[in-house]
Amino acid sequence: MSHRSRLTAVLVDVPAAELDRTASFWATAIGKEPKTYDKLPEYRGYGEVTPGIEFMVQGTGDAVPRVHFDIETDDVEAEVARLKALGATEIGRHHTWVIMQDPSGTVFCVVTIQVQEMFERHATSWD
Amino acid sequence: MSHRSRLTAVLVDVPAAELDRTASFWATAIGKEPKTYDKLPEYRGYGEVTPGIEFMVQGTGDAVPRVHFDIETDDVEAEVARLKALGATEIGRHHTWVIMQDPSGTVFCVVTIQVQEMFERHATSWD
Repeated sequence: MSHRSRLTAVLVDVPAAELDRTASFWATAIGKEPKTYDKLPEYRGYGEVTPGIEFMVQGTGDAVPRVHFDIETDDVEAEVARLKALGATEIGRHHTWVIMQDPSGTVFCVVTIQVQEMFERHATSWD
Repeated sequence: MSHRSRLTAVLVDVPAAELDRTASFWATAIGKEPKTYDKLPEYRGYGEVTPGIEFMVQGTGDAVPRVHFDIETDDVEAEVARLKALGATEIGRHHTWVIMQDPSGTVFCVVTIQVQEMFERHATSWD
């Protein structure tokens, strides 16, 4: 069974106390008002800032800001296994997504399909 | 005079000693062999990983890895001035690009147009 994956989102992760100020800055910087989510109050979602790439700001429990990106896939377990075999490490799970690090320690997430049409058109197939 | 800008690239910044290993991981993770650049030996460029978004790995002088993104524009000075007025800070210049921080300290860069066709089709105009 093959599965597919694609870079789908860029997220600005900031200390929770900085969330509102940072979200307001990016609203004006990219020209889009963010959505809020009842079940995920730490997130602000700006939708696609350019076709196929969503932009979000997230309040975290960490003291320092960070940017991370998400890889969407039609099979999270298969994609996590593929990336582990290449040298990545799984460092946590949260809701439906898996938090991973590349060999240098860079953090990224593997998530379910977020932008269906762009996934169908542009995801890479892995055997 | 109005100018335009658009999110154009995602970059994995790693300590220089980690560059080759990290670049090899991402080559297999995204399924693209990176280009090298005679004048910018610290970069590996994978081209567009999804239409309109370039992916790169960069070796840095920093001890910790980081992800940053680039905003492309047809007027770097106007875009930097716009973002400063919104609360961003300029922290450096390198080649033709300007390194900035958002109010939380998140680092991003303002660069000249990288993906011309997508810029023409999808950049946002600012008055």
